[in-house]
Amino acid sequence: MTALSITELCDQIRPLDEAAMAAAQARQDILTKPQGSLGRLEALSIQLAGITGQVLPTVDRKAVIVLTGDHGIAAEGVSAYPSEVTTQMVVNLLRGGAAISVLARQAGARVVIADVGVAGDLPEHPDLLNRKIAPGTANFAQGPAMTREQATRSLEAGVEIVMDQVSQGLDLVATGEMGIGNTTPASAITAVYTGLPVDQVTGRGTGVDDAGLALKIGTIGRALAIHQPDPSDPLGVLSAVGGFEIGAIAGVCLGAAAHRLPILVDGFISAAGALVAAALCPNVKPYLIASHLSVERGHTALWQTLGLKPLLDMGLRLGEGTGAVLAMHLVEAACCILSEMATFEDAGISGPQD
Amino acid sequence: MTALSITELCDQIRPLDEAAMAAAQARQDILTKPQGSLGRLEALSIQLAGITGQVLPTVDRKAVIVLTGDHGIAAEGVSAYPSEVTTQMVVNLLRGGAAISVLARQAGARVVIADVGVAGDLPEHPDLLNRKIAPGTANFAQGPAMTREQATRSLEAGVEIVMDQVSQGLDLVATGEMGIGNTTPASAITAVYTGLPVDQVTGRGTGVDDAGLALKIGTIGRALAIHQPDPSDPLGVLSAVGGFEIGAIAGVCLGAAAHRLPILVDGFISAAGALVAAALCPNVKPYLIASHLSVERGHTALWQTLGLKPLLDMGLRLGEGTGAVLAMHLVEAACCILSEMATFEDAGISGPQD
Repeated sequence: MTALSITELCDQIRPLDEAAMAAAQARQDILTKPQGSLGRLEALSIQLAGITGQVLPTVDRKAVIVLTGDHGIAAEGVSAYPSEVTTQMVVNLLRGGAAISVLARQAGARVVIADVGVAGDLPEHPDLLNRKIAPGTANFAQGPAMTREQATRSLEAGVEIVMDQVSQGLDLVATGEMGIGNTTPASAITAVYTGLPVDQVTGRGTGVDDAGLALKIGTIGRALAIHQPDPSDPLGVLSAVGGFEIGAIAGVCLGAAAHRLPILVDGFISAAGALVAAALCPNVKPYLIASHLSVERGHTALWQTLGLKPLLDMGLRLGEGTGAVLAMHLVEAACCILSEMATFEDAGISGPQD
Repeated sequence: MTALSITELCDQIRPLDEAAMAAAQARQDILTKPQGSLGRLEALSIQLAGITGQVLPTVDRKAVIVLTGDHGIAAEGVSAYPSEVTTQMVVNLLRGGAAISVLARQAGARVVIADVGVAGDLPEHPDLLNRKIAPGTANFAQGPAMTREQATRSLEAGVEIVMDQVSQGLDLVATGEMGIGNTTPASAITAVYTGLPVDQVTGRGTGVDDAGLALKIGTIGRALAIHQPDPSDPLGVLSAVGGFEIGAIAGVCLGAAAHRLPILVDGFISAAGALVAAALCPNVKPYLIASHLSVERGHTALWQTLGLKPLLDMGLRLGEGTGAVLAMHLVEAACCILSEMATFEDAGISGPQD
């Protein structure tokens, strides 16, 4: 259990530091380049100043938190892969062979792997955090995915995991996940919060065929008709059609924002988690950085609903945190530019001619 | 002088290695992720295999070549900054205070700075290559920017500079440039090769106002009417409306492609140089990687003409090689994924259910 309730935590999330942002903007404007010519790198550096309250923010200590869980809804045949792949992939993560393992090594980020709801038996491993709420969610085609109490616990698990990382030293956190079937709850949540028809926010996930996609859309549509989730009750939405790792991602966002940490949000499932966090606490939004646009249908609508513009558009659709970790380099570049470039005065360079 | 003529060099540029590409694709398809789920990272890794002839390419040794030169056309008032800023910025580069200095440090790339046509006096400096062809081009509103012989020498300078870097060990090269006024020749070249009206391929460069933009468009339009450059004669186009650093960028592309090196092409000016290279030798195209889409008008048309899709879209408009160096991380990520991820068999993971 966290020391603070989720409501208390939300109250701790403050607006960005306007003074730090103004000072960072003033510095950008005297660096040796035409004003604004570094585009989104400049905007990112100013956002980071506002998040951290530091005029010259740094992101030396980086982590990606990979939340893993299984989904009762997978029994409906909504995924191209069987549920046991979640367990097998966690083992692959622990061995350093997954895509996120590779990209995090390259980015110099630690990988934090947490089981918040995997159905299979996982080995004891020093790098695996056991925060299992239940061995997979219930099949939300038949009833709620989880109880409200479990939904709260999934949020708390995310908060606890990120706070533990903060205590070890952390400047930048990325969200990630692994869970066979988890584009299905993410699409359901997206439909609830965007108000768009299910078929417009539901994609092929790991790669279902046309029949699989039709089945997935039909399953989500019927579940929403049964549960009638109320967008003004985020915990209710999470209980009805969510996932343990999605709740935990929301918790990571809330915990990180309360500690003034920038949060690189990964793909479709991570963005659904961030959306739950923003529904619980709108103040979390300026702490979020949209890392990339995936090819999963519905991701564009999710980013729009969050008011975020993704940094990368690389045609990714893997999750795990891969896009978020790939974008760490850009966040770091924004910090380096602000800290390390010479000013016009330092360099004795003429300004624009009038 | 290079040992080979430009024509002989072009003859050495071979198509990509199809066998290496097929082997890289086969490996991507057995790595622990749904096939194709890493999108452009997968495509990049296969392109790199084809370029290098290595099934597991690496890009450990990286350099950005910053070609610098001045432009007689600046006398027409087409830039927001005076010409002396080119010289001042070269000094800033040598001191490590420019944006490219900062981003190259972050990326672990060496910065190679070459003067191929700066008008001002530059200090002797161990990190500055003096390959000055002339102290700035002539004003192409009044006559050709340079002689055909100078155009050839600018190409040769680029070839020599990249070959020297190859001899020091190089796996990935990025193009960069600095030269007040150089969006004007780049727009002229773009108009010649895209066939688009001048106003559709001419932007604000470092930031001219509406009147400055109208002057720039008018100046380019009149120059093209005078010179009538023939797109089938790239050397003639370069002589009429080019720039020394643009020719040298073309030379870097040709030299790198002849050595089977991947080339990260930076912004609008670099893409214009790459277009000259492709006009001289269409085989160079598959060796090019479009690093980013700048906000400079005409860049989209340039990439389309080259048949390339940019990796990043960060609203940059600085040049120097900044976007290309920023994209090095993505190229490296593509290599790491191909080399370091586990296969399904290694990891004992179930494939898709049928």
